[in-house]
Amino acid sequence: MARRLFAEWLGTLFLLSVVVGSGIMAERLSGGNAAIALLGNTIPTGAILVVLILIFGPISGAHFNPAVTLAFAMRREISLRDSLAYVAVQIIGGVAGVILAHAMFDNPLIDPSTTARTGTGQWIGEFVATFGLIAAILGCIKARPDAVPYAVGLFITAGYWFTSSTSFANPAVTIARGLTNTFAGIDPAHIAAFIAAQLAGAVAATLVFRWLHGES
Amino acid sequence: MARRLFAEWLGTLFLLSVVVGSGIMAERLSGGNAAIALLGNTIPTGAILVVLILIFGPISGAHFNPAVTLAFAMRREISLRDSLAYVAVQIIGGVAGVILAHAMFDNPLIDPSTTARTGTGQWIGEFVATFGLIAAILGCIKARPDAVPYAVGLFITAGYWFTSSTSFANPAVTIARGLTNTFAGIDPAHIAAFIAAQLAGAVAATLVFRWLHGES
Amino acid sequence: MARRLFAEWLGTLFLLSVVVGSGIMAERLSGGNAAIALLGNTIPTGAILVVLILIFGPISGAHFNPAVTLAFAMRREISLRDSLAYVAVQIIGGVAGVILAHAMFDNPLIDPSTTARTGTGQWIGEFVATFGLIAAILGCIKARPDAVPYAVGLFITAGYWFTSSTSFANPAVTIARGLTNTFAGIDPAHIAAFIAAQLAGAVAATLVFRWLHGES
Amino acid sequence: MARRLFAEWLGTLFLLSVVVGSGIMAERLSGGNAAIALLGNTIPTGAILVVLILIFGPISGAHFNPAVTLAFAMRREISLRDSLAYVAVQIIGGVAGVILAHAMFDNPLIDPSTTARTGTGQWIGEFVATFGLIAAILGCIKARPDAVPYAVGLFITAGYWFTSSTSFANPAVTIARGLTNTFAGIDPAHIAAFIAAQLAGAVAATLVFRWLHGES
Repeated sequence: MARRLFAEWLGTLFLLSVVVGSGIMAERLSGGNAAIALLGNTIPTGAILVVLILIFGPISGAHFNPAVTLAFAMRREISLRDSLAYVAVQIIGGVAGVILAHAMFDNPLIDPSTTARTGTGQWIGEFVATFGLIAAILGCIKARPDAVPYAVGLFITAGYWFTSSTSFANPAVTIARGLTNTFAGIDPAHIAAFIAAQLAGAVAATLVFRWLHGES
Repeated sequence: MARRLFAEWLGTLFLLSVVVGSGIMAERLSGGNAAIALLGNTIPTGAILVVLILIFGPISGAHFNPAVTLAFAMRREISLRDSLAYVAVQIIGGVAGVILAHAMFDNPLIDPSTTARTGTGQWIGEFVATFGLIAAILGCIKARPDAVPYAVGLFITAGYWFTSSTSFANPAVTIARGLTNTFAGIDPAHIAAFIAAQLAGAVAATLVFRWLHGES
Repeated sequence: MARRLFAEWLGTLFLLSVVVGSGIMAERLSGGNAAIALLGNTIPTGAILVVLILIFGPISGAHFNPAVTLAFAMRREISLRDSLAYVAVQIIGGVAGVILAHAMFDNPLIDPSTTARTGTGQWIGEFVATFGLIAAILGCIKARPDAVPYAVGLFITAGYWFTSSTSFANPAVTIARGLTNTFAGIDPAHIAAFIAAQLAGAVAATLVFRWLHGES
Repeated sequence: MARRLFAEWLGTLFLLSVVVGSGIMAERLSGGNAAIALLGNTIPTGAILVVLILIFGPISGAHFNPAVTLAFAMRREISLRDSLAYVAVQIIGGVAGVILAHAMFDNPLIDPSTTARTGTGQWIGEFVATFGLIAAILGCIKARPDAVPYAVGLFITAGYWFTSSTSFANPAVTIARGLTNTFAGIDPAHIAAFIAAQLAGAVAATLVFRWLHGES
């Protein structure tokens, strides 16, 4: 179990350092063109997800995401006790990843965001994003488990652009991104609603795919 | 059959919400540079196609496209009755996807396009785009069925740039994109000619590959 | 043999219509930023190569390129007679692809290029590009034949940027691109030197990999 | 052994000619937008890594990187004597690759960099980058060896953006990039600290994954 928790911690740490670090780099270099900045944030995020799931999938399942852990808990593929431990290290790892990104870019290590991300459109976005992420995972695991890393990376690549919220789709990521006043940040006051939408999306996808796959 | 139709509906819904949603995001952020906007529309569309075909391929075949359903009907791999049901849910799903994208981006839910997309050059484009899409599917299914999701995603990635029409290549997508007056829209008056060119391309590709693969 | 030649013809046609068509689209939309235009030319070209090799590989070997056919002829995996027929249809298909791209974009169908592409640096570029392309093919065929489509697409993606000539790496493509006075064009007076460098690169790579793989 | 050393030499040569060549092309074309230039440097580098590892992996293991060779030496999968030979040809190949890129782009063949790359943030960046690169390799080799080429290419794609140092992550690459006063260059005075951070990252990752994989 120590290895599994360490894998979840280290993977989530890397994920956040990429999300936040590439956001800082992209914004600094993009000369004010927000689409170029988002491209410079999207490509690294999609790429690192593939890599992290390849590396850590065989060890911990490579959740890095309480919404994913929730889906597997609903499917009774992880115990409640292990789920809670997973979620804890995911959040701790995510925060550590933000601090690491800040250290690399000479930013104050903890730097709460002032970026407003709120409103019905964005909450729908988070529901859709998390529904789709869980759908990608559960859909591939059944027939093409080897494709899961690619499916997740590609889904988030799309999600950064097609959802108005840019697809956080992950409560641990959302909490951690509250601590960075850079491109990827979210005002801490707007985190709770995002997480609620994410968990609703995860539950809905889990139920829909249970039926689609003909499971009891 | 309910599961297959639901999969076609949900997949086409996701496809359209990505095509339209990423078009809105890309246009808003790109500062007027149309190539950057098209890049921000292309990458998510190609990515989500891979994901959707991975997820829904084992359930419904992941057509999401009346031109694809037509090709399989010509090959007698789907019955006429099922084909008609597929096409119906594809169109309904596509429209729902546009509405969902509009809801996420606080756009009027139904918003008919005024973007002219017409002329011989673009009709040739739609013929070529749909010919190529069906070629990608039929070509891979025979020798490399596991590669179909990647082939389709990559073909449309190319199609957005090399065809003058930006490769709609899908009647359900074309109808749905008539309802959005954003980057991805098409004036409803120009839809019929696009669909005619698409169906001609699908028929031609099906016949060519029947001969190429030495089928009766 | 008719099917193999048709596959070479159709594949090379598609390849050129993508190289030229995406170049036209990218240049028109990029607002004068040449790096964005090249990106809009690179991504579709790399993508379509993967698709075309997946589709036509099992039928004709998916050469689409006299330099590739030369390499296989040196390895006695294709007869001299078949090689000559391959090269002929590759050139005819390439020219047809340029005409098709021009038809889609309402450009004069034949439109000789005035773009100078010459000089020692670019000739070294073509040698390196074709050496690398043949290396990618021969290197993968031995140990990872399923990866050939991806290796070729990714190599050309890199080649468009790291060689000063932007990696034509293909005599049929070079001849055809002489006929388009758009982004992808090359002044016909500069074609012969490019082809000489390409063939030299192909021969060198074939010999090097014969030794590297311990073949007689 | 001659073949293995030649493969390491040729692979590292190609890698550097892509890193430096695409940097020159990207900077020349990008009109001063550094994010677009970095994108034009990132995509070719990630792509060529996949190709080179596919080609040369079966011959030499496709290290191209003294930090990778160090990791395998620590795991006793390569002898000390062979390791030293690998490192020597990697450095020689890297320098040759820079010269080749300069020849292609009509740049002085040896052209020492004046680009400052230094400071704690960047040294942390190099530690993180090399840790992650070794993690990608060791993580995939165990469970998904066929995915190593893709994992490495995607990790460096991410690394160019999320680390403040842009992920050199390779002592041979770092030395060679000291010789180019172009986009990819590094002031030779700043090389030693980068290499120290890289080797520390490689050692740390090797030890962490030894424990994670339950190896003695």
